[in-house]
Amino acid sequence: MSTMIQIGLDEIKNLSLRVLIAAGYGPAHARAIAQMLYTCQLDDCQSHGLFRLFMCVQTIQAGKIDGQVLPVLDPSDTAIVRVDARGGMSLLAVEAAMPELIGKARKHGIAAMAVNRCYQFSALWPEVEQLSAEGLAGMAMVPSHSWVAPAGGTRGTLGTNPLAFSWPRHGRDPFTFDFATSAFARGEIELYKRAGKPLPDGVAVDEQGLPTNDPQAALDGAMLTFGGYKGSALSIMIELLAGPLIDDMTSQESMAFANGMGGAPYHGEIILAFDPNQFSGGRAAQNDARAERLFSDILDQGARLPSQRRFEARARNLARGHVEIPEALFKDLQALLT
Amino acid sequence: MSTMIQIGLDEIKNLSLRVLIAAGYGPAHARAIAQMLYTCQLDDCQSHGLFRLFMCVQTIQAGKIDGQVLPVLDPSDTAIVRVDARGGMSLLAVEAAMPELIGKARKHGIAAMAVNRCYQFSALWPEVEQLSAEGLAGMAMVPSHSWVAPAGGTRGTLGTNPLAFSWPRHGRDPFTFDFATSAFARGEIELYKRAGKPLPDGVAVDEQGLPTNDPQAALDGAMLTFGGYKGSALSIMIELLAGPLIDDMTSQESMAFANGMGGAPYHGEIILAFDPNQFSGGRAAQNDARAERLFSDILDQGARLPSQRRFEARARNLARGHVEIPEALFKDLQALLT
Repeated sequence: MSTMIQIGLDEIKNLSLRVLIAAGYGPAHARAIAQMLYTCQLDDCQSHGLFRLFMCVQTIQAGKIDGQVLPVLDPSDTAIVRVDARGGMSLLAVEAAMPELIGKARKHGIAAMAVNRCYQFSALWPEVEQLSAEGLAGMAMVPSHSWVAPAGGTRGTLGTNPLAFSWPRHGRDPFTFDFATSAFARGEIELYKRAGKPLPDGVAVDEQGLPTNDPQAALDGAMLTFGGYKGSALSIMIELLAGPLIDDMTSQESMAFANGMGGAPYHGEIILAFDPNQFSGGRAAQNDARAERLFSDILDQGARLPSQRRFEARARNLARGHVEIPEALFKDLQALLT
Repeated sequence: MSTMIQIGLDEIKNLSLRVLIAAGYGPAHARAIAQMLYTCQLDDCQSHGLFRLFMCVQTIQAGKIDGQVLPVLDPSDTAIVRVDARGGMSLLAVEAAMPELIGKARKHGIAAMAVNRCYQFSALWPEVEQLSAEGLAGMAMVPSHSWVAPAGGTRGTLGTNPLAFSWPRHGRDPFTFDFATSAFARGEIELYKRAGKPLPDGVAVDEQGLPTNDPQAALDGAMLTFGGYKGSALSIMIELLAGPLIDDMTSQESMAFANGMGGAPYHGEIILAFDPNQFSGGRAAQNDARAERLFSDILDQGARLPSQRRFEARARNLARGHVEIPEALFKDLQALLT
């Protein structure tokens, strides 16, 4: 168990801003990234919090990303807002287009954001929770790198292709999930490798396409999707909607583009927004009660809703005014400033 | 192995129409249902073909459904077409609203159909394939009856909640999938019961909420979702989008409404349509080639695309001008006419 230290809530953003500016990000990108890291760290989501500063620094040091470039919105009368990140980090592009997406969803009932040409490293739940905070349902999908074999396949074609969804609950934390369509996250396999533990069945194949429980063989081979052929079909859908549909790369193209260099992957993203008021003919309140009966029946039988632990962490950290992070992480981050 | 007999393609529709009219369906509903049964039977999809005539007859004989009522479209300038089936079968409502959905998707880039107050018994893939035949991507979701426990739960709350998706491929059969989010279809469990075979692990819990391999205990208890907590989260999303979002019933409400009577379940449906041309800024052709490279890479490694077998059956049956159905089914259908 690593020693934890306390960081004040303001200090999460301040530390992030200092690291990002020092690394070469312009103020607009630094602020958008710092806001995302704050949101994740506040929920004790360590893997997508301050820890991600290393990836941000690595990506800009590799000369891949433009830390200054501003996203450009494509004006339209349709229900789609297209935003070109122009080779910058995705977060500023999503932030710039979010008011348009919300406005279009309220006007048209359903709307979509297509983000192009961006580096992507963040969790998707903070983005769909921006929609549920506005009373809209949100869904987000991205490809990644082609580490994952399709069902019945032997090599990587698909990305870890996460799907995130958030549903607004009146006066409560939203119903939110955000999961990779791979059986395991890539980082989980690396944790098994470091711990010298065998992988469970059904997680990966080796370089010959044969089932393996060896973490290194899995990293050299390909991961599998969750849920067999159904998870595989879902992952292919995400490739199509967050890639060819929006004129952006598949996971395979993104991996080829990265050419073995580390840092954040480069590809597109799609976010859908649904207005319950338009869909229900103005009966959103009655249907909020209907959704709550569904959630109650799930909770009454001892099951948990996804993200419940995260919301508990958020409430606790907001109340006490600080988060806890590993001391080693804090020291490593300080080193980035010297 | 049951004896199979040949039925000419025209005879699929003729036989369906005769059975449906004799049972009390008006000509509009009978034609819409016959068209759907034809589409499924043509693809050798036995479970959703002529076999479903029994459910159609049972539903109307139970006095639940109005065989004459015509659906009503709610006019709107938004990207949503709402159609009220007014207690009729879903198919005619979907058929009536489909041109609006296609028009709205072309105009707004993304559009949705919300179908309310309908009896639903059909597969979803024929509906999303109507969209991909028009060059649009389509997604469809419905609840069902609350036979499925959420991850970590002990009793039925969720439906088998299928998700269907179709992607248009230029000059080829589309990429289509249509799967239940339950680990097994309910009918599959009944087949295991009839065969006296134990269920695999992870398919169901008994009345006490404990894991079971006994088909009868599973039918008395609850089914589980595919893919653990991820499949469960996806199933909850489908409940929300195809229920409270569109002002219609959850699976639990639908089951309570049915009150133990057989026949088709009564609830809503949501269908989404995406226009690749609008999403890609007019670069649909270039991105069609990009999607084809993805499919090629899946096929090159010996994996199959979902629905491949169905498309092969369709080509074979169209070429020979007939389908094969079990002789026993044919005799039972004839008995409905006497």
